[in-house]
Amino acid sequence: MKIGIIGLGLIGGSLGLELRDHGHTILGVSRKESTCQQAIERGIVDESNISLQLLSNADIVFICTPIGLIIPILEQLIYHLKPETIVTDVGSVKMPIVEQGSRLWDKFIGGHPMAGSAEQGIDAAQKNLFKDSPYVITPTQNNLSKDVETLKTIVNELGAKIYTCTSENHDYATAWISHLPVMISASLINACLAEEENLTFKLAQALASSGFRDTSRVGGGNPELGIMMAQYNQKALLRSLSEYRKQLDQIINLVENKDWKRLGYLLEKTKQGRIDFL
Amino acid sequence: MKIGIIGLGLIGGSLGLELRDHGHTILGVSRKESTCQQAIERGIVDESNISLQLLSNADIVFICTPIGLIIPILEQLIYHLKPETIVTDVGSVKMPIVEQGSRLWDKFIGGHPMAGSAEQGIDAAQKNLFKDSPYVITPTQNNLSKDVETLKTIVNELGAKIYTCTSENHDYATAWISHLPVMISASLINACLAEEENLTFKLAQALASSGFRDTSRVGGGNPELGIMMAQYNQKALLRSLSEYRKQLDQIINLVENKDWKRLGYLLEKTKQGRIDFL
Repeated sequence: MKIGIIGLGLIGGSLGLELRDHGHTILGVSRKESTCQQAIERGIVDESNISLQLLSNADIVFICTPIGLIIPILEQLIYHLKPETIVTDVGSVKMPIVEQGSRLWDKFIGGHPMAGSAEQGIDAAQKNLFKDSPYVITPTQNNLSKDVETLKTIVNELGAKIYTCTSENHDYATAWISHLPVMISASLINACLAEEENLTFKLAQALASSGFRDTSRVGGGNPELGIMMAQYNQKALLRSLSEYRKQLDQIINLVENKDWKRLGYLLEKTKQGRIDFL
Repeated sequence: MKIGIIGLGLIGGSLGLELRDHGHTILGVSRKESTCQQAIERGIVDESNISLQLLSNADIVFICTPIGLIIPILEQLIYHLKPETIVTDVGSVKMPIVEQGSRLWDKFIGGHPMAGSAEQGIDAAQKNLFKDSPYVITPTQNNLSKDVETLKTIVNELGAKIYTCTSENHDYATAWISHLPVMISASLINACLAEEENLTFKLAQALASSGFRDTSRVGGGNPELGIMMAQYNQKALLRSLSEYRKQLDQIINLVENKDWKRLGYLLEKTKQGRIDFL
């Protein structure tokens, strides 16, 4: 198949590397001439260009830009495509993207590969990035099942675990396990930074070990990603934040009231709950 | 030197392995006969017994029991020691231990090796557990500096990074970087478990990846340890929880008010702040 990829960063680049190996012809579009050049040199794409024109013959196109650019790009892209081309994206929020994307192109199918790395850009592109990771596909009732199957076949070649659900359910579920942790973790960093004037700040810094490191990791991640999560998934995130705050208040109350017995029950529950959950 | 170790679990066992290699004579006391046996077989100790009597000739004794047993053990131990024996502990909270310990034995010096592993017990005892990890020593003004130096010399043999501070400062600093993360992380697990009735619970479970895994790790840890932190360090923990709640509320407000610009500043700050902090 002729597979188009727009945005040749970590995700787009890794998609190219993997799918080219499966015998597909990869057409890569990047805003930067130098990235196009690199993509060809690294064997990520067969052809590369800064113009969307390159994709006029593609069978399927993956939009792998930052989430805020997906719809603006799609608005331009549709003037270049043949009518049977399937378009998908890799944005981490699905409801607003699928709603607008479907209106622009009836063969638009939302997608979200839940794989990543701390590194970004084409230099970070790698084989096996998607292997054994979840890849969520969020078709609507207006998508043809043969198009959904085509997308699934390609995703399958990545070695990813495919989950199919509505974009609403995707956004609700990821609010809990992905977007909420970012806000929780950022609050921890901020709470510690607020102590900077305190004499023990430097000691706390010196003693910070794996517990602090792990709990603060996602809160110290890419700020653009954090804003996007909040902006595009505001409702579900607020709901999870409000439930979280309730749980936090419960712990604060138990500690205030020295109710060690109930705090014990609660921590037993979280210990077992985490094992069951993961 | 003759070094006594009471409690031959992960910490006590690892101390024995390491210090015996440095030429010290290790005397190990455990409540269980079978653990004493194992300690000898694994070369962790030179002599082992279930009676504190074994330590009557020790130059220094490390109490490596769970935190709630340190003082009760010390109360018995003092009847067996020669007057010049230094006694130290490895409890993760220092104020209440040092306060009571010093009253019982004037050569008591608080200590806290900030090393660990998910495994527990004598089977988990290992070489190099303390290497490059912080080891906090919290002497009081009543300790002789030559005794503090003796303890430091031994800790130095473990390859640990020694920090000396008051027990108050230790407890305040660890509340932020160790005890607070446990409560934050436990609240996340609880918030997700509260969703169990929801249709998307199973989807959230399937999609949970490294972000959720890392942020929830310490909240799914040993419940006894969590209770001990809260019980013995209640005041400092409540103070950090209250500052944390303020920071969380700030984020909730920004998301509610769709103030993406300020949320962006905040997440930039946490990104840089975490890098500087660690």
